[in-house]
Amino acid sequence: MTSISFVNGSYVEHRSARVHIEDRGYQFADGVYEVFAVIDQKIIDYEGHLNRLFRSLGEISMKSPINKKAYLFHIRNLIRKNKIKDGLVYLQISRGVAQRDFKFPKNVKSSIVITAKKISMENYYSKFCKGIKVKTTKDLRWKRVDIKTLNLLPPVLAKQQAVEHGCDEAWMVDTEGYITEGSSSNAWILIKDKLITTPATNSILNGITRTSLIKALNRKQIKIIEKKFNLNDIKNANEAFITSATQFVMPVIKVDKIKIGNGKVGKNAHVFQNAYMEAIQLK
Amino acid sequence: MTSISFVNGSYVEHRSARVHIEDRGYQFADGVYEVFAVIDQKIIDYEGHLNRLFRSLGEISMKSPINKKAYLFHIRNLIRKNKIKDGLVYLQISRGVAQRDFKFPKNVKSSIVITAKKISMENYYSKFCKGIKVKTTKDLRWKRVDIKTLNLLPPVLAKQQAVEHGCDEAWMVDTEGYITEGSSSNAWILIKDKLITTPATNSILNGITRTSLIKALNRKQIKIIEKKFNLNDIKNANEAFITSATQFVMPVIKVDKIKIGNGKVGKNAHVFQNAYMEAIQLK
Repeated sequence: MTSISFVNGSYVEHRSARVHIEDRGYQFADGVYEVFAVIDQKIIDYEGHLNRLFRSLGEISMKSPINKKAYLFHIRNLIRKNKIKDGLVYLQISRGVAQRDFKFPKNVKSSIVITAKKISMENYYSKFCKGIKVKTTKDLRWKRVDIKTLNLLPPVLAKQQAVEHGCDEAWMVDTEGYITEGSSSNAWILIKDKLITTPATNSILNGITRTSLIKALNRKQIKIIEKKFNLNDIKNANEAFITSATQFVMPVIKVDKIKIGNGKVGKNAHVFQNAYMEAIQLK
Repeated sequence: MTSISFVNGSYVEHRSARVHIEDRGYQFADGVYEVFAVIDQKIIDYEGHLNRLFRSLGEISMKSPINKKAYLFHIRNLIRKNKIKDGLVYLQISRGVAQRDFKFPKNVKSSIVITAKKISMENYYSKFCKGIKVKTTKDLRWKRVDIKTLNLLPPVLAKQQAVEHGCDEAWMVDTEGYITEGSSSNAWILIKDKLITTPATNSILNGITRTSLIKALNRKQIKIIEKKFNLNDIKNANEAFITSATQFVMPVIKVDKIKIGNGKVGKNAHVFQNAYMEAIQLK
């Protein structure tokens, strides 16, 4: 099946979906993005993602070229055109095409690119049951990672380092030894009955899944402690997991050489995952 | 005249020069670049730029898809095809096109894009005589700015801030109050007979023009002090300037509200500019 993408107002065959070489997304990473999970044709947490998209645009002094309804319209069209039941939608806005110059161009239309692909929820659940391994890496990123921009080379290098060490994700460590977050996920640990995740400052991207899970757990009277944690805390953790729009809740069974709990997926991971899935009304 | 660009092996009309939306340069800023000045059809400091390009590629674990001779061949072709006497050549290498995933793709060809445009040396000299104004901004960039990558949103935002304050360039200031460098240039000040520029660590991009100027001045027995400087040092400076491949030596007459010297281009700026132009054999 030919897959279809959305590029600047048109639905095009993905294999021939192109942008100009002077798109500022290509030359300056001058743009922002979001990733939406789709489960059973339902776009998960879309309000949260669209709100964050608008916040990201505002933080880099861009206006959204279209309104939220229009984004939803195009996302739904792509889900339909690509016959997606479970999948991911990637949406990117850049400052548009202009002769290369660091300063913002004037009177230029932003570029919008949206792609959609299928994922297998069976694969997710099977990965969940095995859990993932994490490698710590230095957090080399810029000081405004709370904005979801295209400046992704630092997390790309972190993820690759993790993969080369047989791990699935990198947990980035700041200069003081605290874990900030994963290369494309938020980090959580459970020490006894204390569920801990890094607070949402400029040092992390405040995950939509993170926020939804916090709300879902609060509703179940499970208290979350938002505070920084380090490798010593991880040594004391009985469980650990990541959250992201593409991984939902995903248990971590090892961080570097530290086995988490007994090195198997803990019982609370299921509780947290259920709470999240329930909150997004899949269960 | 139709301008011609080079995209992945082909010379194409610039207006229709395109790359795939899943080029990792577009989605992850996963690539590096160089800018070459061309004066009188001569490519300035090309060895330095090509050496740095290969270093940048190595630092992000990429191999160059072609050798130095081939880059020069394509650059020269573009200069000829675009009938450039004085101009700029922009060259970008990204990790290629692959389904979006943070980790490196396997068996993917890197993308090469080269563009060329004309510049006016008359404009440069007239700007030189007026000097430029600089605004200081926070240095928000990542910790490996010594690599010339496409992760340019932080300097884009810095430059834009400068422009909105009626300035031509931003000087970025680290958390300790030291100037690191300009958004797309290196920073220099002269205090009495002491010529000072920030040392080449991971906190600055070691400019090719910076390096060439240091060599040129050393040959003239002009000593350069590579050390960090702050706003207090700038207050004591009698001259200041920036260097870059596109601005060569460009005098700075004001930094924020601090007038440099008497607020006009100083006499040494001409000495430094001459030394550089002589070194690149234009005089």
